[in-house]
Amino acid sequence: MSRYEALGVNVRKPGIERFKGAIENLYPGAFCVVQRDPADPEVGLVTHTDSAGTKPIQAYIGYRETGDASWFRGLAQDALAMNLNDIMCVGADPVTFVDYVAFNTLQIDRVALLGALADGFLGCLDTMKEEGISFMFAGGETADLPDLLRTLDICVTMVGRVRLADVITGERIEPGDLIVGLRSGGGARYERGINSGIMSNGHTLARATLMSPLYVERYPEVSHPSRGRYTGRFMFDDYLDELASTVGEALLSPTRLYAPVAREALRRAGPGVHGMAHNTGGGQTKCLRLGSGVAYVKDNLPEPDPVFRLVQREGGVEWREMYQDFNMGVGFEFIVHPDSVEDVVSAAESFGVGAAVIGRCERSGDSNSLIVSTPMGDFLYT
Amino acid sequence: MSRYEALGVNVRKPGIERFKGAIENLYPGAFCVVQRDPADPEVGLVTHTDSAGTKPIQAYIGYRETGDASWFRGLAQDALAMNLNDIMCVGADPVTFVDYVAFNTLQIDRVALLGALADGFLGCLDTMKEEGISFMFAGGETADLPDLLRTLDICVTMVGRVRLADVITGERIEPGDLIVGLRSGGGARYERGINSGIMSNGHTLARATLMSPLYVERYPEVSHPSRGRYTGRFMFDDYLDELASTVGEALLSPTRLYAPVAREALRRAGPGVHGMAHNTGGGQTKCLRLGSGVAYVKDNLPEPDPVFRLVQREGGVEWREMYQDFNMGVGFEFIVHPDSVEDVVSAAESFGVGAAVIGRCERSGDSNSLIVSTPMGDFLYT
Repeated sequence: MSRYEALGVNVRKPGIERFKGAIENLYPGAFCVVQRDPADPEVGLVTHTDSAGTKPIQAYIGYRETGDASWFRGLAQDALAMNLNDIMCVGADPVTFVDYVAFNTLQIDRVALLGALADGFLGCLDTMKEEGISFMFAGGETADLPDLLRTLDICVTMVGRVRLADVITGERIEPGDLIVGLRSGGGARYERGINSGIMSNGHTLARATLMSPLYVERYPEVSHPSRGRYTGRFMFDDYLDELASTVGEALLSPTRLYAPVAREALRRAGPGVHGMAHNTGGGQTKCLRLGSGVAYVKDNLPEPDPVFRLVQREGGVEWREMYQDFNMGVGFEFIVHPDSVEDVVSAAESFGVGAAVIGRCERSGDSNSLIVSTPMGDFLYT
Repeated sequence: MSRYEALGVNVRKPGIERFKGAIENLYPGAFCVVQRDPADPEVGLVTHTDSAGTKPIQAYIGYRETGDASWFRGLAQDALAMNLNDIMCVGADPVTFVDYVAFNTLQIDRVALLGALADGFLGCLDTMKEEGISFMFAGGETADLPDLLRTLDICVTMVGRVRLADVITGERIEPGDLIVGLRSGGGARYERGINSGIMSNGHTLARATLMSPLYVERYPEVSHPSRGRYTGRFMFDDYLDELASTVGEALLSPTRLYAPVAREALRRAGPGVHGMAHNTGGGQTKCLRLGSGVAYVKDNLPEPDPVFRLVQREGGVEWREMYQDFNMGVGFEFIVHPDSVEDVVSAAESFGVGAAVIGRCERSGDSNSLIVSTPMGDFLYT
């Protein structure tokens, strides 16, 4: 059992097969479900939902320690990014989104929380609009659930649309294609500050590994009572030179919105883009869901950002697991024809986002496979 | 402070104003947000999200007491109904939906839970299809969040579509209109078994009032540790003659899917339907969001179903609060021109759903108001 499974998180999600049989999905090898629009047979609808995971718990610690609800603000971007980045992977344009905020009203000030989240969502809408990515906000639901939520959960559902002729189905991924990885850390031109690269996955493990058990004593609601104990040696506001920030800031760094980069890369590379992956749950193994019969080989991954090295070292987490639980510095990937590498890299760099070839595609058997080859070892995932 | 507020639930939702300012909404007096489809200026998109509230906790008690995950099955219908019924209120047709299931993986068997929910969603899709209401399932997200969720949360987001010329905006509601109420209890032709009428709101209060504190001792995760204590005298499987069922069965009775009735009523009554309301959070006061300058007078409400009388009596809850926290037997309302009453009533009765005129509309000042006039007292809500 992995460290993460011991904490109650299984990144492979057994049990979802029953659901999958009921889904109408035009392209099983695509990154997201695409459905034919009943009103226009040439158009696909992409309806996608995902949450910020347990990252809100980290924000809650910041809120309780400082009394400042602005720690919640970045969660809006996290939940939005988990959806906007995903639907971009099939070439869809965003149309509108709703949020769902379920929280423990007895321990979080409602008006302060909702104000911070509204600021976060509005900031994202403005930033994306400035970059030419316009979509609407359709409201959503705030649910008072103190009996259900220990702290809070932030979920977004996004509706996108794509012409079926333009869907990036993953079916065109072939041996010889190259994988261009985009950095999750650093700073994009349209972002404020430097991103740690952590994004919104792996937080249950990162928090348990880094945060002091003092927080569970102070705020028992920050973990499951019998597991999820914190074993770390850091306080929220400990500044670490290796992070160039506090631990809390590094863990709450908001997930990059890759939409402007993805759109520009598609504009430059056109049909040379055969697939895109947003490295959320499953980390570096996310590409396994793209295409069929592909052996992904990633042998030129960058040095993981400091936050990942810190989690690995402090928790003694196996490197094999690290690459499955975290994006490890590469948050978004393009699978492209070799002729299109320069288009994608230059598009990313025009936004200040680091990009490089991190691997290639080879022929596999029936099912997809992935080899991650690093100085810390070679790891096979199927 | 109401009983419900003491449990951490505020049905008036302060703090959402910040969000409201960011929402693009064509008809502020309509039941749901309707947005212009960027691809077709004559079409409105309705993107709606809501959860089954804390009803999943009751299902969890059944699951833990019996080991049978089928107690979770009805929650799929609850979460779906909270969205499908809502979007019908503006005249929209459902297109597709996603679900979001966040749960405590350490205390709920993943495969059993997801199997029960998949059965529930598939059953609803089939039943609605038989009744001529077809829509797709677009998948969704299952999130392993043992640090966040004490038990489980089930949320659905539904996408609907309506021609803007056909939107039921609420603006045509006028003095003299009558309110036709549809029963939440009893049995519709397309349902199995008899519905208690409880739907998916008020469960935090109902559970605390009816369920024995023994359950909190056995399963501390079924409530907030410092509040939400159960003060009831019933066990989950206590059979009560007045309910004609066990307490657990009554509380887990799934929310009626009103879509077939609503569509048939619209077909018969056409433009005579000026408004529709689904009585979820806020109970009988839900109509306050419809139209402007309307004084709603409900002076012919039916005798509340037994489950509501039980909660009131056992908890000593004020009747004024009961009508604000629960649907009290009327789950869905049509605001109609008097000439259309018979069309709506006959449409409902053709499905075996009880319907009757429960009140009328009078002129109000600037803002809407509601008087609920019952043998237990007259209650004003603004």
